[in-house]
Amino acid sequence: MSLLIVGSLAFDSVSTPFKSVENALGGSATYISLSATYFTGPAYIVGVVGDDFPKKYIDLLESHNVNLSGVQIVEGGKTFRWAGKYHYDLNTRDTLLTELNVFETFNPEIPEKLRKSTYICLGNIDPTLQLKVLDRLENAQFVVCDTMNYWIEGKKEELLKVLKRSDVLIINDSEARLLSNEPNLIKSAKVIREMGAKILIIKKGEHGALLFMEDTVFSAPAYPLEMINDPTGAGDTFAGGFIGYLHKTQDLSPENIKRAVVYGSTMASFCVEQFSTEALVNLSFLRIQDRYREFMTISRFDDI
Amino acid sequence: MSLLIVGSLAFDSVSTPFKSVENALGGSATYISLSATYFTGPAYIVGVVGDDFPKKYIDLLESHNVNLSGVQIVEGGKTFRWAGKYHYDLNTRDTLLTELNVFETFNPEIPEKLRKSTYICLGNIDPTLQLKVLDRLENAQFVVCDTMNYWIEGKKEELLKVLKRSDVLIINDSEARLLSNEPNLIKSAKVIREMGAKILIIKKGEHGALLFMEDTVFSAPAYPLEMINDPTGAGDTFAGGFIGYLHKTQDLSPENIKRAVVYGSTMASFCVEQFSTEALVNLSFLRIQDRYREFMTISRFDDI
Repeated sequence: MSLLIVGSLAFDSVSTPFKSVENALGGSATYISLSATYFTGPAYIVGVVGDDFPKKYIDLLESHNVNLSGVQIVEGGKTFRWAGKYHYDLNTRDTLLTELNVFETFNPEIPEKLRKSTYICLGNIDPTLQLKVLDRLENAQFVVCDTMNYWIEGKKEELLKVLKRSDVLIINDSEARLLSNEPNLIKSAKVIREMGAKILIIKKGEHGALLFMEDTVFSAPAYPLEMINDPTGAGDTFAGGFIGYLHKTQDLSPENIKRAVVYGSTMASFCVEQFSTEALVNLSFLRIQDRYREFMTISRFDDI
Repeated sequence: MSLLIVGSLAFDSVSTPFKSVENALGGSATYISLSATYFTGPAYIVGVVGDDFPKKYIDLLESHNVNLSGVQIVEGGKTFRWAGKYHYDLNTRDTLLTELNVFETFNPEIPEKLRKSTYICLGNIDPTLQLKVLDRLENAQFVVCDTMNYWIEGKKEELLKVLKRSDVLIINDSEARLLSNEPNLIKSAKVIREMGAKILIIKKGEHGALLFMEDTVFSAPAYPLEMINDPTGAGDTFAGGFIGYLHKTQDLSPENIKRAVVYGSTMASFCVEQFSTEALVNLSFLRIQDRYREFMTISRFDDI
């Protein structure tokens, strides 16, 4: 009944109008697992790092109930590096550097004991690798998949195969428009669900998130933050809260999936308040629950 | 206890990727009053037209319980004309023509019997005219004010005077950012409320609306529309539903103002489904209530 997270572990260098950090702990698997383990644990990561990946980052993840036994350490290899610079409004960013390094030749091996994992989160990596992972799993019951513009444009065919084998696709609004070639988000959702995604979540940043499942449309609000410091990892953090809560509750009813969307939004709202993983390593479940209830307060209105 | 609406009556020519209309009934006062009168009536308009304004438009408005006794008809004058063209995604438009005509020299006279009006909706017109109207009112209890980029840039000082004398400002997100010079919408709302708007509503189109009042933030979802035909008048229609419902209920509690925001969103969602005022002239209160409840369904989630 374990939770498997496939994605990157990385060094992130992030610059915003307010602050800069160099070589911070980053990567999709990092954010997903740090977020998910507030709900459930352990979370098993499958990924790859170089031998430059410091012990302090390994210790940090392990202290959060993240199990790294599925992470390959390439001797003499260099860990994935990303650098980005956010603009004034924090909604747009320039990627300054993407060094795939050990990810360039990554072949995801799934250790024997993880092949029976039931809840799977496929972080934003090459869809070819996502497919390889799915091929090697023996008991996947609930698969959540993330992707990005780069793969939608460059590996659409492989991505569509991943979609058909996933239960949930989580993407942002611009990715949804790109994937569907349709500007209206609601029509876009229809097109994407016809591609195979049974459950679709479209993240809209400061405008909240939309869930499409069966005949249900659910609109989750965004948390009203006056200060966003660093949007890096918010999408992964959302995915982590979402799958972590569902793995904990083992309830895939529409009502519970709505709760999971709000938990995902809650976790993402903490993430962007601070730099890098700072917020995620210092949370408590009580604060998470309090903020979940604030989401209820801001979106409730009475019947007529 | 009457509801007074100040704004334009116009001929609109609208072109979208789907359809075009010429010289349709338009103008802020038109949309506001057609929307408000589903909740309350009569709605009294103060405005101006030329003698080219056709009897069929007067009949249409009057049949919807809109009272035009406060509308000046300028002999030999031409009615305000606007023409716009929407782009592929319907979120951006080019204004092709703005002929102020009789509005250029409009001096809003308020007939004696309307000076005691209690609920006032100041549609999007020159803030100098909005101030003149406020000066002539004797018993204004609840003032809702709309504006646009043009006045924020060109008549900010007068607009700030209007704000200080209004209870509610309704603007869209780009106008809020422009008025506050602040990209973060939540901080933007704080800045604008410090300018004097006690209650602030920020409309975000396909992303819903935000209400800021006392210590409350309320996030209303957007109705998930697969097909938007013509966004013209959506903002005015929102304002009409909002003030119409509040005028009917005479309850300015935060909980009722949230309901009014949802009714505003409901009316706007009907408006954009069809061209021009088509949707607004063919609604029923039952359909409005049904859609209000759909707004509840799409935004509800359970406690944990």
